[in-house]
Amino acid sequence: MLQMAKAKRGEVTEEMRAVAQAEGRPVEQVMKELAAGRLVIPKNVRREEVEVKGIGGGLRTKVNANVGSSPDYADVDEEVKKAEVAVKYGADTVMDLSIGGDIDEIRRRILKAVKVPVGTVPIYQAATKRGSVVDMSSDDIFNAIRKHAEDGVDFVTVHCGVTREAVETLRRNGRLLDFVSRGGSFVVAWMIHHGEENPLYREFDYLLDIAREYDLTLSLGDGMRPGCLADASDPVQFQELLTISELVERARARDVQTIVEGPGHLPIDHIEANVKLEKTICKGAPFYVLGPLPTDIAPGYDHIVGAIGGALAAAAGADFLCYVTPTEHLCLPSSEDVKEGVIAARIAAHVADVARGIGVDKDIEMARARRELDWERQFELAIDSERAVELRRKRPPTLDPSVCTMCGKYCAIKITREYLSKKS
Amino acid sequence: MLQMAKAKRGEVTEEMRAVAQAEGRPVEQVMKELAAGRLVIPKNVRREEVEVKGIGGGLRTKVNANVGSSPDYADVDEEVKKAEVAVKYGADTVMDLSIGGDIDEIRRRILKAVKVPVGTVPIYQAATKRGSVVDMSSDDIFNAIRKHAEDGVDFVTVHCGVTREAVETLRRNGRLLDFVSRGGSFVVAWMIHHGEENPLYREFDYLLDIAREYDLTLSLGDGMRPGCLADASDPVQFQELLTISELVERARARDVQTIVEGPGHLPIDHIEANVKLEKTICKGAPFYVLGPLPTDIAPGYDHIVGAIGGALAAAAGADFLCYVTPTEHLCLPSSEDVKEGVIAARIAAHVADVARGIGVDKDIEMARARRELDWERQFELAIDSERAVELRRKRPPTLDPSVCTMCGKYCAIKITREYLSKKS
Repeated sequence: MLQMAKAKRGEVTEEMRAVAQAEGRPVEQVMKELAAGRLVIPKNVRREEVEVKGIGGGLRTKVNANVGSSPDYADVDEEVKKAEVAVKYGADTVMDLSIGGDIDEIRRRILKAVKVPVGTVPIYQAATKRGSVVDMSSDDIFNAIRKHAEDGVDFVTVHCGVTREAVETLRRNGRLLDFVSRGGSFVVAWMIHHGEENPLYREFDYLLDIAREYDLTLSLGDGMRPGCLADASDPVQFQELLTISELVERARARDVQTIVEGPGHLPIDHIEANVKLEKTICKGAPFYVLGPLPTDIAPGYDHIVGAIGGALAAAAGADFLCYVTPTEHLCLPSSEDVKEGVIAARIAAHVADVARGIGVDKDIEMARARRELDWERQFELAIDSERAVELRRKRPPTLDPSVCTMCGKYCAIKITREYLSKKS
Repeated sequence: MLQMAKAKRGEVTEEMRAVAQAEGRPVEQVMKELAAGRLVIPKNVRREEVEVKGIGGGLRTKVNANVGSSPDYADVDEEVKKAEVAVKYGADTVMDLSIGGDIDEIRRRILKAVKVPVGTVPIYQAATKRGSVVDMSSDDIFNAIRKHAEDGVDFVTVHCGVTREAVETLRRNGRLLDFVSRGGSFVVAWMIHHGEENPLYREFDYLLDIAREYDLTLSLGDGMRPGCLADASDPVQFQELLTISELVERARARDVQTIVEGPGHLPIDHIEANVKLEKTICKGAPFYVLGPLPTDIAPGYDHIVGAIGGALAAAAGADFLCYVTPTEHLCLPSSEDVKEGVIAARIAAHVADVARGIGVDKDIEMARARRELDWERQFELAIDSERAVELRRKRPPTLDPSVCTMCGKYCAIKITREYLSKKS
């Protein structure tokens, strides 16, 4: 029986218990949120040995890292390594977005290499298999989804909201950058070429049938997301969100867990509104944002741009942050870029969590270690201990090892400690 | 006659005109905001050839970069280079915080090397001159301020709000990390040791006399700023802010331009409130924030933490962002760290400005360049062209040079362009 069906019946599962324990929450809360569709625990029934994660329902904000090959760079080992690096630095989930080389092999190797929930975008394989996106058949799409589910993938992005109506909305309204979603563009090209409705929308019940077989979580992709600030929060984006909100309800009715994907490129003053809207329209479904990126002019630093947007989104209620690496908009990331992206997204998630009352004990511990000038403890508590040690070693104190080389003996903490104990 | 006095009389100066032109605003607006003390143009009458900057009054958010020696690392050339690097990557102002080696030489060389407004913290020199912070005299402090002004420094941080009353507030309330402001700790140590009131507070009128001689802008330092999330927005911090608000009024009455400094370490949900409070209590005085840093656990990545806090602060109305480098809390930064800090702060400032209706044309241009797959134009528009070029070259396209290696021939923009022009 599906997780959600059990939750609705008031049945506590091992997965719910593991999530409740990891988060320090009552298991009844996890069960209730899952039953309502406000929390998902992506876990394919075929996947073994997975460190389950709860996404949504007021839990700690989760971070996803995308890895995967491209037509230019398709080294299986490298992509597996990226997945491992992502998990090492704290990614809660990994998505394999491969579109080059032996896609089956990469996915299967990643599923074995990491213990966190793994997601994919099966339409990529359906499209690349034929060489041209329009040559794939509707069956190719569903077969790819089934194959990925069969392999144990825990969640899949499916661009069900990219409908003919949405394309018409785009034609009427216009946009600066029409589509920037890879999967979204595949679906649009396919619909236009074949003159047919999106199979993922038209045959959504069939998709739910497949999802039910594996307890596959559906991440409803935002194929119409804005690709630049100028297109943010436009009718095209919200047309798709409205469609998705109906699909969320249909999935819930059949006990299929769903996540809703969101932008993308948004000015900082649009972020909170976008989160609130998703939460209202999709009745609390977990919100999975890509960034968001509140400026378009910083290629090379989009992990920082994404951290700004992600912190604000998560503080406003987004549940799941898709990282952005420094090479976004420029090239396929390396393992080092994956690390930078994961750390930046984790900082954003933690910044938001602290404001939501989660995890501030770590910050308090760090402040104590700073008060005591206890460097070993500071390194232990640092989000990236190796980096902290490396930087301090770059310019070590030569005069007084208890302080750092920013202030040396004029360390405010040391001076304060010496004088504040005295009477003024 | 002082800038502010002229502004009050309705007299437009060359500096006001330069600021108005740089910002695309009516000069009357600049004059009016300056007259009201909501905007400053830091420029010492002795400084020649300075590229004036307006800070506050709804203008573009400005970024400051701190450079300067420490007892461990005191290389004059290196600090001058850091100032140059900071300006090269877009810092609007530079502060020399030197506390080691030949402090006079570093300051004078920086004043010659860069054309942007330069700030200092004269009490550092007063304290380090005697070797111990408590051995300096009240005269040492004022003499250092005069010396810096004499050299042409455009603005100085003065910790006038660190009073005996503030220290008593701290003793009553307690804190996890008492003081983390270097200058603040000097003043506190001095007051406790001598059993006297802070000379910068007690003799504030004398300080104004000096400032008036040079049209020196006073940046009222927040010596009691919280040093960790746990101490944020506490009575100690606001006690100082209340004192500072009175000093702002006294300075305005004597035509001395003032900036108010703010935290520091703040949870993300405190940031907007802190900005609004400063703006209300200090009647719109330009707000200069240090970060702020919404988490304490990311040493090595505090430029990213500062970018999150800075973007939110500036979007809420903060006018001036002090950058944070990756080595904050670990060691004195290198030139490379200065670059990383400046870029991160500029991203934060721009993200906020866009939400305030300033500078979005650049983002629109970037989106157009992306639509056209015009890589040269994308590099030109990038906040750091060199980095963007370098990353793209790291993994260049091998199959189709018009796209990037993230998607290759499955580029959403390319596919969309091909199919969207067709009828569905």
